[in-house]
Amino acid sequence: MGQNLALNIAEKGFPISVYNRSTSKVDETVERAKKEGDLPLYGFHDPESFVKSIQKPRVIIMLVKAGSPVDQTIKTLSAYLEKGDCIIDGGNEWYENTERREKAMAELGLLYLGMGVSGGEEGARNGPSMMPGGSLEAFKYIEDILLKVAAQVPGSGPCVTYIGKGGSGNFVKMVHNGIEYGDMQLIAEAYDVLKSVGKLSNEELHSVFAEWNKGELLSFLIEITADIFGIKDDKGEGYLVDKVLDKTGMKGTGKWTVQQAADLSVAAPTIASSLDARFLSGLKEERVEAAKVFKAGGFGDILTGQVVDKKQLIDDVRQALYASKICSYAQGMNLIRAKSIEKGWDLKLGELARIWKGGCIIRAVFLDWIKKAYDRNPDLANLLVDPEFSKEIIERQSAWRRVVCLAINSGISTPGMSSSLAYFDTYRRGRLPANLVQAQRDYFGAHTYERVDVEGSFHTEWFKIARQCKN
Amino acid sequence: MGQNLALNIAEKGFPISVYNRSTSKVDETVERAKKEGDLPLYGFHDPESFVKSIQKPRVIIMLVKAGSPVDQTIKTLSAYLEKGDCIIDGGNEWYENTERREKAMAELGLLYLGMGVSGGEEGARNGPSMMPGGSLEAFKYIEDILLKVAAQVPGSGPCVTYIGKGGSGNFVKMVHNGIEYGDMQLIAEAYDVLKSVGKLSNEELHSVFAEWNKGELLSFLIEITADIFGIKDDKGEGYLVDKVLDKTGMKGTGKWTVQQAADLSVAAPTIASSLDARFLSGLKEERVEAAKVFKAGGFGDILTGQVVDKKQLIDDVRQALYASKICSYAQGMNLIRAKSIEKGWDLKLGELARIWKGGCIIRAVFLDWIKKAYDRNPDLANLLVDPEFSKEIIERQSAWRRVVCLAINSGISTPGMSSSLAYFDTYRRGRLPANLVQAQRDYFGAHTYERVDVEGSFHTEWFKIARQCKN
Repeated sequence: MGQNLALNIAEKGFPISVYNRSTSKVDETVERAKKEGDLPLYGFHDPESFVKSIQKPRVIIMLVKAGSPVDQTIKTLSAYLEKGDCIIDGGNEWYENTERREKAMAELGLLYLGMGVSGGEEGARNGPSMMPGGSLEAFKYIEDILLKVAAQVPGSGPCVTYIGKGGSGNFVKMVHNGIEYGDMQLIAEAYDVLKSVGKLSNEELHSVFAEWNKGELLSFLIEITADIFGIKDDKGEGYLVDKVLDKTGMKGTGKWTVQQAADLSVAAPTIASSLDARFLSGLKEERVEAAKVFKAGGFGDILTGQVVDKKQLIDDVRQALYASKICSYAQGMNLIRAKSIEKGWDLKLGELARIWKGGCIIRAVFLDWIKKAYDRNPDLANLLVDPEFSKEIIERQSAWRRVVCLAINSGISTPGMSSSLAYFDTYRRGRLPANLVQAQRDYFGAHTYERVDVEGSFHTEWFKIARQCKN
Repeated sequence: MGQNLALNIAEKGFPISVYNRSTSKVDETVERAKKEGDLPLYGFHDPESFVKSIQKPRVIIMLVKAGSPVDQTIKTLSAYLEKGDCIIDGGNEWYENTERREKAMAELGLLYLGMGVSGGEEGARNGPSMMPGGSLEAFKYIEDILLKVAAQVPGSGPCVTYIGKGGSGNFVKMVHNGIEYGDMQLIAEAYDVLKSVGKLSNEELHSVFAEWNKGELLSFLIEITADIFGIKDDKGEGYLVDKVLDKTGMKGTGKWTVQQAADLSVAAPTIASSLDARFLSGLKEERVEAAKVFKAGGFGDILTGQVVDKKQLIDDVRQALYASKICSYAQGMNLIRAKSIEKGWDLKLGELARIWKGGCIIRAVFLDWIKKAYDRNPDLANLLVDPEFSKEIIERQSAWRRVVCLAINSGISTPGMSSSLAYFDTYRRGRLPANLVQAQRDYFGAHTYERVDVEGSFHTEWFKIARQCKN
């Protein structure tokens, strides 16, 4: 990723020095720079000559593993840096680490940015989405570079903006990744329903996703999903996707997102369910054993007996996926807002949606509609109640309910779609059964309750009254 | 709670000294001890005379707000403590705080226990469930007291046992509370479906829950729920439960449980959904506004058109509640096991189920069956695959699916029941659509994948191949 980003910067005409602890990586990058058009990229084999080669005030972008390697790299580099120089961490770092480092750097007269970069290898080379947060002064140093290096979306501009103070860039990138988890899980569920219930072949799935990529679901993840279904196994018969083990890895940002949501009292069930799905996918051996237990008890992986109209199913699943996606983004956006309020970051949700329109993994036409929703009303309480999105959900809610029920009756789990639906159905209800929970809490713990008709805090001796009633 | 626990201890024949910063609390406790049968309880108005009144080695149980008040109280007391004395924190403390304090105390030659106490005011007085963790030596000091003070379950013994080292007592109590959140949410959903879809009156709900409390759902929470539906409003017409505002408070242990689950890679969706439900209940004003938006769009709080057979519905909901409950406890137990492994606590899951059989908020006949499941197989991977529980789930799965689908088609959210069902349907499937997610990760991030047929780690140039296919 570092190599690709360096080549991208050089290609935009900005001379760049590169350094890596492994000299072969440096040489490889220099080689590629030569091949890709004699780009102004210069390799260094030791940190001192690397740092000294850079024009002052120096700006160094670091792409190393989050955590202690970042601290180590900062230590190595700062030995040669001078007042006013700047380090940018382009990794998926925990925002509090960035805040700690920014403070420590400031004490040395150095500037610091934590910049989330999304787009993978390919995005880094051809235009990523970048989320720089921290020192505004440092951002100004390289604003012109970032604006050219970022993905460019016609009519919408480069996919980068100054996010805000402190660790806000990392935090926003973290939530971006949480949303990415949700998107991937929802797509996997759509795949599962179409394949397991609808009995669609990989060829058919390829066409369905390619077709979906022309409409409201148009996005990078839908596009690559279509691609995946088209690829044959290079080691045997059939399609490669069927040979891939159903175990999903993860790296930490999804977990952090879920933990932050809990911390900030923000419901984010779609993102949480995608994390849980990854956890459960990892228990492959346990699942195989559990499948045997329940097969012996009379039911297989899929419950039979569901009659489906394939064409209707495909259309329903598309709608369910889209409606669920709205819920997932509503959760992510509200999580960012809650943190922004807590930290005083003053983040602009619409602007975040704008810089995610290109370059990053969740890039989609949908993000433009989110941006417009916040343009219409920057204080929108929830994407669900935006006039356009609420209309879209109403149009899709029947299909959405059909898909989730079909899945349930087929023994297929759609944790992301069903938790999204539950989120919607909870959020849009003026009256929930939470009155009972609060009555229970007051019964056993004297936690008090409010009333619907009178102001104030009340406590009832439920046990005493109930005992009197019984006698 | 402290007052009640002190009276309980005195009542069992153990002389006890009590102290509180507010002297009126002390006097009130002494007064109650006199009234409740001249119990051997002695009040003190200053910490020094309080500590000095206690026989050595001293054992002091502290019941103050978690966090800094605990540190403050320790500081106050330890000024007068002598080597070998012991402090027990009976609050809902974060387990790491207990570990920090145990270490600091040990440096002073003092012993420390973090002891979760469940049962509320009433349990503290008449027999709570207690989860002491930390110094085994300290536990031995007061084992005879705890055994008599705890709730006594016939045939099963006192609801207390030495949990394990460090903060294990607090951790187990935390998960107990997380499970309690889940139970309360599932009951609230049962209430919602019966009331909103089945149109049951409070009188009917009262009878239904009272009836349920005679069977497999027999538990404290079902019992108090039945009580609640029987209580008339003292401020006006109708029943009190209908006047209680649908906003649920919370105190932190549910949040910690969810965050720990994420940390330990354990899926705990039932518990997480109950936390989310509390968060969303808090957004009362937003929900009322959202309800208006969607009403204007053509649908009200409840979607009409569901035909229900009341008797069948009641029976179905009971089964759905029970099956969901199994999932919730499976999650909680696996969370405890994961932490036990991480920390080397060597916790005994069956023994934990045993001490929850009485005294605590989640006490239920069900816990005896959990204990038996772990007796049958201490290494049981998941409660779901225990022979008895798997049989019970198979018997109930049709009803469970019917209830969740009915709720979905009625626009009622049952996040706890549906996430439990999704958990079950995910866990019992040998093959999940996680292969697609892993293929996507390899496509855009070169994260590699495993195969179902060959050992090893693989990477495919999906993009390149897809482009070739297109050309």
